[in-house]
Amino acid sequence: MLVQTTHHVAFAVEDLDEAMSTYERLWGAEVEVRGTLEPQGVDAAYLTVGRDRIELLAPTAEDTPVGRFLARRGPGMHHVAFEVEDVSEAIRDLSSAGATLIDDEPRPGLGGHEVAFVHHESQHGVLIEVVSQ
Amino acid sequence: MLVQTTHHVAFAVEDLDEAMSTYERLWGAEVEVRGTLEPQGVDAAYLTVGRDRIELLAPTAEDTPVGRFLARRGPGMHHVAFEVEDVSEAIRDLSSAGATLIDDEPRPGLGGHEVAFVHHESQHGVLIEVVSQ
Repeated sequence: MLVQTTHHVAFAVEDLDEAMSTYERLWGAEVEVRGTLEPQGVDAAYLTVGRDRIELLAPTAEDTPVGRFLARRGPGMHHVAFEVEDVSEAIRDLSSAGATLIDDEPRPGLGGHEVAFVHHESQHGVLIEVVSQ
Repeated sequence: MLVQTTHHVAFAVEDLDEAMSTYERLWGAEVEVRGTLEPQGVDAAYLTVGRDRIELLAPTAEDTPVGRFLARRGPGMHHVAFEVEDVSEAIRDLSSAGATLIDDEPRPGLGGHEVAFVHHESQHGVLIEVVSQ
């Protein structure tokens, strides 16, 4: 597996519209795509900031991973996503290197990308996503 | 102020050597620079992951901002840094747009860059740094 670039940095927020407005006002962010990922229980948006991308995640219900994250820790940084050529290959390589995978196989992410998550305990408290191009 | 790119994403860790080793093993990270920032109370390293950069921050003592962060929240994502052409101009623009600045003027960061931090309450729990090229 070879990481190519940082695909996005994701922040958990209470209110997606309000957070989008803040990042537009302070940081000149522009909305790239917005949608609901039902299986993950999030309303999500990709915003470009300069040449890069942030993701804002608001839970669709309290009893979802992001809903529980907000209840436990409050809004803030949630995960970082590294872009790889092949998510299935990355899963195999990470597993061989001793990482704890949340996803044993790729699942669909925002914008039609394949994604998989690596448990935060594998890398000192940081939840990391791998995402296809 | 115009954000150009994401300069780095920073993670607070307990043990810098151990964390560097993890990111090298799992993600192919390569050390770019390592040093101690006495005024900020951190041992820090920039590592490149693909074409991008992460920063690992370990506190030099418990009674430092990162030491208190670890005591309160445990290891994990700490801040994101956006690269701008001029940090002083960014401070002025962010202040005009209603952001709460931690630094009223630029201070030295890792690798000789000028930096300034914007309070996490300004952007939904996310601590953001602006950094010069």
